Amino acid sequence: MSLPEGYTLRRCTKADYAGVTSVLKVLTTVGDVSKDQFDQLLDHWDSVRIGQVPMYNNSVIVDTNGEVVATGNVLIEKKVIHQCGLVGHIEDIAVRQDQQGKKLGLILIQYLYKLAKEYGCYKVILDCDESNVGFYEKCGLKRAGVEMKIIFDK
Amino acid sequence: MSLPEGYTLRRCTKADYAGVTSVLKVLTTVGDVSKDQFDQLLDHWDSVRIGQVPMYNNSVIVDTNGEVVATGNVLIEKKVIHQCGLVGHIEDIAVRQDQQGKKLGLILIQYLYKLAKEYGCYKVILDCDESNVGFYEKCGLKRAGVEMKIIFDK
Repeated sequence: MSLPEGYTLRRCTKADYAGVTSVLKVLTTVGDVSKDQFDQLLDHWDSVRIGQVPMYNNSVIVDTNGEVVATGNVLIEKKVIHQCGLVGHIEDIAVRQDQQGKKLGLILIQYLYKLAKEYGCYKVILDCDESNVGFYEKCGLKRAGVEMKIIFDK
Repeated sequence: MSLPEGYTLRRCTKADYAGVTSVLKVLTTVGDVSKDQFDQLLDHWDSVRIGQVPMYNNSVIVDTNGEVVATGNVLIEKKVIHQCGLVGHIEDIAVRQDQQGKKLGLILIQYLYKLAKEYGCYKVILDCDESNVGFYEKCGLKRAGVEMKIIFDK
């Protein structure tokens, strides 16, 4: 399985501002993110490491025109358990609506968890809706537990 | 609801090496973590921030003898979505077996998500076994989705 010809998969950069903020709208509320806020976010993402391992691995798939068509992250956390082990948290996977059916989500997720494995993670987890379990099973993940949440009022 | 008299709740420090590595054994495999490895881990935990907000908030409850009886973390992540919003991930909640029934888990979780709220998180999530859903509902969380995982061979 590989990317369509001319598509590339790489780390997100400041130049992806318009593409990333747009593609993420298929997922949830993005809100009014300015270029300055995005640049500061990228500075943060690029600055925090566990030794040589980047904590944030926000990635994009870009089409032949250089436009962002998919995005996702694996956040890496260092724990005490499992001998000070690393765990990857896959977050915010989004594929542009007109690009669905090209397996971009699957390619992106498999890239992210291979990256996490290379960085030494002993496992990768992600949370999803019940309706997406089948898709993530095709990506090689297994049901592990229940996601609980609390949302704060502004 | 408050801590038993003489108990305190505070950020984890290097001095908590023996206590934290011991208490986490109720949860899962800890393995052979040396004092040096723990100190390096604490250096990492204390070094990564989102502006003024610490990304790791590993916390301990300590009894009247200064011994660690419970531990847990809320890892804070900065995203693009929700106007470059912060999300807290509650991780690795453990209470020493002989200290169960004192509501230490509940107090710790509520502390962690209030901390996350103060730091500006728009939500806090955690993953748990189906059997613990009732406990986390008492802590104020709601069922949100499915946790999926992939575990890597060594």
